[in-house]
Amino acid sequence: MPKAKKLRVSVIGGLSEIGKNLAMLEYDDDIIVVDCGMGFPGDDMPGIDLVLPDFTYLEENSHKLRGVFLTHGHEDHIGAVPYLLKKMNVPIYGTKLTLGIVENKLVEHKLNFVPELNRVEVGATIHAGVFSVEFIRVNHSIADACCFAIRTPVGTVIHSGDFKLDMTPVDGHTMDLPRLSALGDEGVLLLMCESTNVERPGYTPSEKTVGKALDAIFQQNKRKRIVVATFSSNVHRVQQIIDKSAQNGRKVVVTGRSMLNIVKAATTLGYMKFPFGVLIDVDDMGRYKPDQLTIITTGSQGEHMSALHRMAHGEHDKIKLGSDDLVILSASPIPGNEKTVDSVINELLRRNISVHQDESIDVHVSGHACREEIKLMHTLVRPQYFMPVHGEFKHLMRHKELAEEMGMAPNHIFVAENGRTVEFTAKGAAFGNNIPAAHIMVDGIGIGDVGGIVLRDRKMLSEDGVVIISAVVDEQLVEIINGPEIISRGFVYMRDADDLMAEMKEVVRRSLEQELDNGVRDNNFTVKSPLRQQISKFIYSKTKRQPVILTAIMYI
Amino acid sequence: MPKAKKLRVSVIGGLSEIGKNLAMLEYDDDIIVVDCGMGFPGDDMPGIDLVLPDFTYLEENSHKLRGVFLTHGHEDHIGAVPYLLKKMNVPIYGTKLTLGIVENKLVEHKLNFVPELNRVEVGATIHAGVFSVEFIRVNHSIADACCFAIRTPVGTVIHSGDFKLDMTPVDGHTMDLPRLSALGDEGVLLLMCESTNVERPGYTPSEKTVGKALDAIFQQNKRKRIVVATFSSNVHRVQQIIDKSAQNGRKVVVTGRSMLNIVKAATTLGYMKFPFGVLIDVDDMGRYKPDQLTIITTGSQGEHMSALHRMAHGEHDKIKLGSDDLVILSASPIPGNEKTVDSVINELLRRNISVHQDESIDVHVSGHACREEIKLMHTLVRPQYFMPVHGEFKHLMRHKELAEEMGMAPNHIFVAENGRTVEFTAKGAAFGNNIPAAHIMVDGIGIGDVGGIVLRDRKMLSEDGVVIISAVVDEQLVEIINGPEIISRGFVYMRDADDLMAEMKEVVRRSLEQELDNGVRDNNFTVKSPLRQQISKFIYSKTKRQPVILTAIMYI
Repeated sequence: MPKAKKLRVSVIGGLSEIGKNLAMLEYDDDIIVVDCGMGFPGDDMPGIDLVLPDFTYLEENSHKLRGVFLTHGHEDHIGAVPYLLKKMNVPIYGTKLTLGIVENKLVEHKLNFVPELNRVEVGATIHAGVFSVEFIRVNHSIADACCFAIRTPVGTVIHSGDFKLDMTPVDGHTMDLPRLSALGDEGVLLLMCESTNVERPGYTPSEKTVGKALDAIFQQNKRKRIVVATFSSNVHRVQQIIDKSAQNGRKVVVTGRSMLNIVKAATTLGYMKFPFGVLIDVDDMGRYKPDQLTIITTGSQGEHMSALHRMAHGEHDKIKLGSDDLVILSASPIPGNEKTVDSVINELLRRNISVHQDESIDVHVSGHACREEIKLMHTLVRPQYFMPVHGEFKHLMRHKELAEEMGMAPNHIFVAENGRTVEFTAKGAAFGNNIPAAHIMVDGIGIGDVGGIVLRDRKMLSEDGVVIISAVVDEQLVEIINGPEIISRGFVYMRDADDLMAEMKEVVRRSLEQELDNGVRDNNFTVKSPLRQQISKFIYSKTKRQPVILTAIMYI
Repeated sequence: MPKAKKLRVSVIGGLSEIGKNLAMLEYDDDIIVVDCGMGFPGDDMPGIDLVLPDFTYLEENSHKLRGVFLTHGHEDHIGAVPYLLKKMNVPIYGTKLTLGIVENKLVEHKLNFVPELNRVEVGATIHAGVFSVEFIRVNHSIADACCFAIRTPVGTVIHSGDFKLDMTPVDGHTMDLPRLSALGDEGVLLLMCESTNVERPGYTPSEKTVGKALDAIFQQNKRKRIVVATFSSNVHRVQQIIDKSAQNGRKVVVTGRSMLNIVKAATTLGYMKFPFGVLIDVDDMGRYKPDQLTIITTGSQGEHMSALHRMAHGEHDKIKLGSDDLVILSASPIPGNEKTVDSVINELLRRNISVHQDESIDVHVSGHACREEIKLMHTLVRPQYFMPVHGEFKHLMRHKELAEEMGMAPNHIFVAENGRTVEFTAKGAAFGNNIPAAHIMVDGIGIGDVGGIVLRDRKMLSEDGVVIISAVVDEQLVEIINGPEIISRGFVYMRDADDLMAEMKEVVRRSLEQELDNGVRDNNFTVKSPLRQQISKFIYSKTKRQPVILTAIMYI
């Protein structure tokens, strides 16, 4: 008897934001993937550069994989594409700007084949196995963003991607509400909808309101050079800064690696326009007065190596800021970055550089839907089932509550953590088996070789440092013939700790001699050895610290 | 010719919040100190327990020190008192509750003398050398809080301490606006005013609004056991939770070490009242139904070892939470704690525990003055000079702008960072010499033995771990007779890195042999040695990581 055919929907990728980076739809012998992004590690993952979704299930079923469909070009939705392609050659689908950014990324990652990047026009439908994926326009903080209507043998699935509703968008393209409404009329099996701003009431303002705010600031600061820091991927924001600068007779300098990359890509692909002669090279700045210049820069999150950070600390080789400058942070801090952003603002103010912080003129709007926009999505789509995605667990629960308030039955709502699978048949829906969904950490070149143990060690090392004990033991004489020596890092300032070090050596000597008398021969004493225990206890009694203790006892 | 006599005002203590922990007034041979608190280290100080103000100047001038005056009993205003007392015996002045909390702290710190703790009634004036200090009532998130009017030979200085205006306070004691107004009439030389909420418009709501919010929640959740997490020191908040519980026929359980300590102290000193029979022991909880119980707990900041954190993770030995429970977080996250608080909320929701997150019912109010209250302080006091204190640099600058908006001349406003000194004479005011104001880090028992180098090492250790190279060299044969051995922590998961380790050993062997051939004899090769450079370069080429490399080469 053949197994009953089911649609299996799983979210695999995402750190604290569940289901953010990768979702998977499977039916019989076909799999498609929605987005393939990277996560940005927090303070609990020191030294980690980025986090990938778990590809285990996809690797085991790579023969079924029909395509990866990208909703938009943000790192957390496309950043893992090169890593997936290194494991399997799979067709990638996305709109023009999205693929332009993917191509730029692929340059840094050498693949031994030419990847299949398929440009999709907004409104088009792509067939992939039993699935077909329709690209439907949404608004977001990057151009060319889409949500997907995915036809499956069981019914239509709508995945919102990241979206907001902007009825006066900078590029004139409003989210395709009529199409979503028509799909709702036809009947939708499942809505997967983002939850980022589900706690915020009302509507997210139009991107154009930022243009008006910038107008006001340009008017109020006619004598200043204006420096605007924003997200490089926010093409429409950058365009508005360029336009306001041109209108106010200013030349524009672009700085910061990722800003230069995106501006180049967006201009080439036709998503950004510089009025003739407005863009100048940073080296030509000297020819203009401060009030004839606008600088667009990275670093709106206070990132340590960013152009703005370097300017704030007087370390930028070409741009020196001073009392002639006004810095505008056209971005909100991403949760977790508040302190870093504040420290850049403090540093700017300390150097007499003005910072725009008048909350009555708001120079940033979110790219995500607030509660009323989310409700609108539900109202148009009218799904039979609902899976909240893209948010911490608390956001998904808030989104579930919202759906219930709108009349949805609780048992039609699936709050699925990463790795959980929901199965849909003609008869109904239920949780299925879990699939692997670990956080795969990338540190330097290594992918997945840093795990919980290494992170735990890094945390311990960061708290009280490390103490290394070395000695040479003559096996025949059964005695210490050199050492013990002690070195440490991150434990105490050693120059001031001569007495402590001498006492520690004495404790080690006694313990080691005792061990030798007891016939122990070990060059890397385990945690529970008397030597380690005694020195650890001694250090704690003297300092109330618990450094990592490592031993290098060499025998000859 | 005798030196002209000046009033010197300095802020010494405070981490990102400048001047938060300690301020100093000096005139000729007299010094008094306002507050003596500790700072709480952030992510940039791993392993550090707390941060003390720099006592260097006070130690050098301890013969001049006439007293330490405490505005209120929060850790960031009193926490360093025991550490100062260990260095010098100085009279401490404070109100009843403030000293009660100080006494509790001193129990943990053994002093070899009986400290002079002087209880001051609100409204009283204390003479200390040329100074006299008047204790004036303010409202704050702890009872018995004061601001100070300090008479000096040059004029009156008003230090706001931490304050808000509560015209319907829980204990009936409103901030003494008439007294501040009268002092303004007399003439005030200098206002030192806190800046915490200077970015927030309007007024901070009364503490009593929280009581009303709790009422509504108790009414809406009659079937639930209610768990409220708040700051233990917020005596009035805790009192309101007790009162609302009693009114709703609930017994109260108090949990968490600091909560138990403060409740005990506040009850003994008469600042908190339990209606007869309302307080029950945690072990007697089983006798009551969930809807007959309220639990008051610590952990509102998501602190790792707190009672709420343990409850959220099912690790509390006596309190197990479930779907019968509603958790109320009656506190805002302190900046930097947002993620920790969110992770506790996520964990509670994952376990089907309800969490109050209806923003229309606000269960927390700030303890600090918003812009309009700050303006009121300026309006009543009408100072000749002004120093903003208690805030990041950006807050002090905002406060300066506020004072300028109110008509103050810019050159009468002194934005002083920690260690800066402002000097006042009959003729005017100006910045004077700086005094030492480092952040003295306490790690375990050690005070000040962890500095920038140790912290930098800890950061490096946390990012890529540590690699230790050991070997035994025979000096006469000039050859390696044991090793090289390599161990690491926090670098890679070693079981999966056999090949890498073998290659690293080979690189070390070759480099070391080369060094020996060159006549180098060093058991702890410096960073720039070819051995260290070669292994470091090799590791980077293979992994793009830069672990700390330590060598223990032993000679026999």
